[in-house]
Amino acid sequence: MSVGGRVGGSGGGSAGSATGGGEVRKTVLPGGLRVLTERVPTVRSATIGIWVHVGSRDESPALNGATHYLEHVLFKGTERRSALEISAALDAVGGEMNAFTSKEFTCYYARVLDADLPLAIDVVGDMLTSSVLDPAEIEAERGVILEEIAMTEDDPGDCVHDLFAHTMFGDSPLGRPVLGTVETVNSLTRDRIARFYRKHYDPPHLVVAAAGNLDHDTVVEQVRAAFDRAGALSRTDGSAEPVGPRTGTRSVRAQGRVDLSDRRTEQAHLVLGMPGVSRNDDRRWALGVLSAALGGGMSSRLFQEIREKRGLAYSTYSYTSGFADCGLFGVYAGCRPGQVSDVLKICRDELDQAARHGLPDDELKRAIGQLTGSTVLGLEDTGALMHRLGKSELCWGEQLSVDDMLAKISAVTPDDVRAVARDVLDQRPSLAVIGPLTDRQASQLHEAVA
Amino acid sequence: MSVGGRVGGSGGGSAGSATGGGEVRKTVLPGGLRVLTERVPTVRSATIGIWVHVGSRDESPALNGATHYLEHVLFKGTERRSALEISAALDAVGGEMNAFTSKEFTCYYARVLDADLPLAIDVVGDMLTSSVLDPAEIEAERGVILEEIAMTEDDPGDCVHDLFAHTMFGDSPLGRPVLGTVETVNSLTRDRIARFYRKHYDPPHLVVAAAGNLDHDTVVEQVRAAFDRAGALSRTDGSAEPVGPRTGTRSVRAQGRVDLSDRRTEQAHLVLGMPGVSRNDDRRWALGVLSAALGGGMSSRLFQEIREKRGLAYSTYSYTSGFADCGLFGVYAGCRPGQVSDVLKICRDELDQAARHGLPDDELKRAIGQLTGSTVLGLEDTGALMHRLGKSELCWGEQLSVDDMLAKISAVTPDDVRAVARDVLDQRPSLAVIGPLTDRQASQLHEAVA
Repeated sequence: MSVGGRVGGSGGGSAGSATGGGEVRKTVLPGGLRVLTERVPTVRSATIGIWVHVGSRDESPALNGATHYLEHVLFKGTERRSALEISAALDAVGGEMNAFTSKEFTCYYARVLDADLPLAIDVVGDMLTSSVLDPAEIEAERGVILEEIAMTEDDPGDCVHDLFAHTMFGDSPLGRPVLGTVETVNSLTRDRIARFYRKHYDPPHLVVAAAGNLDHDTVVEQVRAAFDRAGALSRTDGSAEPVGPRTGTRSVRAQGRVDLSDRRTEQAHLVLGMPGVSRNDDRRWALGVLSAALGGGMSSRLFQEIREKRGLAYSTYSYTSGFADCGLFGVYAGCRPGQVSDVLKICRDELDQAARHGLPDDELKRAIGQLTGSTVLGLEDTGALMHRLGKSELCWGEQLSVDDMLAKISAVTPDDVRAVARDVLDQRPSLAVIGPLTDRQASQLHEAVA
Repeated sequence: MSVGGRVGGSGGGSAGSATGGGEVRKTVLPGGLRVLTERVPTVRSATIGIWVHVGSRDESPALNGATHYLEHVLFKGTERRSALEISAALDAVGGEMNAFTSKEFTCYYARVLDADLPLAIDVVGDMLTSSVLDPAEIEAERGVILEEIAMTEDDPGDCVHDLFAHTMFGDSPLGRPVLGTVETVNSLTRDRIARFYRKHYDPPHLVVAAAGNLDHDTVVEQVRAAFDRAGALSRTDGSAEPVGPRTGTRSVRAQGRVDLSDRRTEQAHLVLGMPGVSRNDDRRWALGVLSAALGGGMSSRLFQEIREKRGLAYSTYSYTSGFADCGLFGVYAGCRPGQVSDVLKICRDELDQAARHGLPDDELKRAIGQLTGSTVLGLEDTGALMHRLGKSELCWGEQLSVDDMLAKISAVTPDDVRAVARDVLDQRPSLAVIGPLTDRQASQLHEAVA
């Protein structure tokens, strides 16, 4: 879609386009703050999210965990509101407010009844622009984050993905955990967090995205008011332009690496995978279709072979993750330690098979149908719509309409799948495992990726 | 709402009533099969669920896990479809199909685009009425269920609730895990599972619930066709009446019990709680409001005291669970083992404080606002609407409209809260903990409930 110019009094200069969800409009406020909305008049709710163009890959080794720590701290009080007043404001109307930090961005959001959207914009805007970074609150929050790290450690099916990122990216920004480590979290000072806040939370790095029963011009004015009150829009040069999509030069070359974390768990949790494609790579549509067929649903090959026919696992799936400049393809399974070898052999065989032959027509058709249906089903939730708006703006600097997305998925051919299967699945895989493995089982792991 | 009579040709005899969601209608088919729908013409999706009036509390000790095992087996093939054909049918249209088993009921459901609802009804109906219970498939599925048990064991924040149920109900049907144990799952034979299936899966024990962009009469005819094809409606006496809501005589008397499961986890995961109220108890609205204020949101007392002020936990919340004849009230927190004592002391203090004084007006008002907003926000998802329809029919034999629910919540007075706080919170609590505690820490646990 086209980009609206800078706005005068009442949201003029915005550009509209229709997606399968609702009408999408975008306005750029002075100072470079982008506001995107999607109007869905048939619902009674609205979700507002403020996206920040910063993630854990922007951290130096010593700052690892700073993005996520800051995300927590922003809930702890502003010049106008205490931590309790922030949470009570949304609780009082039954809203859901939360935030998440990823490797490439941070997002703060609230889902509320449509009548409460002005309140949500005011509170989330206040948090983003006017945090006081109170030293005592920062200290208390350090304990909370250390508990979050401990809780994640207690969920091996989750943290095996952190381990796999380390396997693939090593000690580099994409290889380090978003939460940081006990050591880095303990060493982060208020000063460093404050510098990080001032550096990354300025209007050109922010995208406000809202979806639901709303009016674009009204939302723009409410956002302007929330940011103006804090002087956030006037602080920056009036000619500031929004920051463009992230670029990078990271590539993944890990091959045949094995990371084993010995833990007294009931299951061994494993991820087998290889370099994938970046989110700017045209092959991502074909890789998405391939991944759906391999491990996207109950009829997928891995689910059928590992769970349905052999009963070796409860949970098994494949996934792709795309960053600005690189990506990963991975397969997860959780199984009893004594069955790791069998499960890995099935995974290797299925990946090899797909690398050699791609997908037959019936499976390709089913995978396309699956992605098409689930994409449309995913549009009924204003939270999901908000997510798509904000992420698209940050990652691509534009909105792809739902119809265009569905067209991209439907256009994937057997040749496209064969090509991307050869490119991706024919690489030597690496492996991350958390579990209580014997020496013999551990050596079988190395054989599995040989 | 009133109950429709038995139907002739085209869905006559059904009764309509409006809720805040959409129009709710109910038809009882010959053989006692109930069909409830809620029409939401503004969405593009529909969710169909078939609810079965059987749960793990209906199992003898030797059959523990049979309800859940059977739930898995029904995905493994019918006279018309293999396991792969069942899953491929829904995957091909991007539908989500799943099932869950609880202590009092079992539910199979699928969420699809509205045009695919006939397919979903046909597939789920086929699974429920015509399972072949293939012996080889049952054997393979045993492995999957053992993996599911192992996976749950690896999630201490989840399985501490199973432990707490055992603390409160002991070795009785409500105290045993829904999944069963490794021993009982290994001892379940095809014969026993088949008997369980024949006994509990007849039309009077079933409720079909559907919500979304649908037409009631059409759904009724599709359900009738799916069940007629299997002869399921003619197998039963034509005058069979639906089974009424479950009754029971179980009461909870556990006081001051402590169950400690020693595990090498990073956090200690604890539930402190006491007998609550049944889902038929009029005090449930006041207890819901009280629970929201104590541990329902970020502004709740436990969240503020344990996490915000002291940084002792990442996750802490309170909850109520209501069965036909009894209920539980509980508080969860996950914290480092060395902080268990501090966390428990805060929990005890907050429960004591509420037992003595109830809630001040501002907190009561906020809790009512929170439940009101979240109830309405919860109505935008056809899955949630389907859940409400089916569960209400099974549990109460009637639908409470959303307006009526909101009126019940809004009508809760300070006196109601004081009364239920005294009734529930003034009881001596019991405690379940999973974690790596020293002997000294373990003995502190006993003091905490003294």
